[in-house]
Amino acid sequence: MTEDATTPIIPTALLEALCFDANGLVPAIAQQHDTGEVLMMAWMNREALAETLATGRVCYWSRSRNRLWRKGETSHQVQYLKELRIDCDGDTILLLVDQDGVACHTGRRACFYRAARDGALVEIAAPLIDPEKLYG
Amino acid sequence: MTEDATTPIIPTALLEALCFDANGLVPAIAQQHDTGEVLMMAWMNREALAETLATGRVCYWSRSRNRLWRKGETSHQVQYLKELRIDCDGDTILLLVDQDGVACHTGRRACFYRAARDGALVEIAAPLIDPEKLYG
Repeated sequence: MTEDATTPIIPTALLEALCFDANGLVPAIAQQHDTGEVLMMAWMNREALAETLATGRVCYWSRSRNRLWRKGETSHQVQYLKELRIDCDGDTILLLVDQDGVACHTGRRACFYRAARDGALVEIAAPLIDPEKLYG
Repeated sequence: MTEDATTPIIPTALLEALCFDANGLVPAIAQQHDTGEVLMMAWMNREALAETLATGRVCYWSRSRNRLWRKGETSHQVQYLKELRIDCDGDTILLLVDQDGVACHTGRRACFYRAARDGALVEIAAPLIDPEKLYG
């Protein structure tokens, strides 16, 4: 791959430590930096990672749309990167972020709003914003 | 699939909401229930999930060893399940756990001990236990 002067780059130490899967992707967990809440999990390719580091705004790779997904590009619920960490095997990224508004497309703060309790799935968080207002 | 009386089962509501990938796996994030620390990310298949729910001890599917991986089976660093949550798309699990000792095979509390800072990878946590003592 050639890089021109305007292409964001990934620091060599990080790139060498990361293991992208057969599709060129690595899972990225987004955690609110101050409260510790796990907001969501999505995927990054090299381009999404490079852009995230260059801009400080989190960019994922959308597997369903097969293109870069700048978090908040439609909903305006942006994630600002505070710190990027990787795990011992280099096959998972942890993003410490500052989440504007809500992370979930359902209008909830976090995507993990269903808990398995007593054989049922229980909703443990309500939407804070009407999804119609985010995407309508 | 037939189940005999001793086979752990997954509640129907949970099974119907979960989306396993083409390999029959779903990523599972382990978070310490009280501190909020993200400890690790690994994978579960239906069997690992069923066993985890049945026993209350977290069991993953090891992709490298191609078998069930009862967390702590060798190291004795067991994860006890406090609550299991799933995300909006049903393609990621969040495990709230109580981690005995350390989660990482390097002897660190959590696997995410390397941070990308100023173009370098910085170790932000030291081992608490010698890995030799865990796996010696």
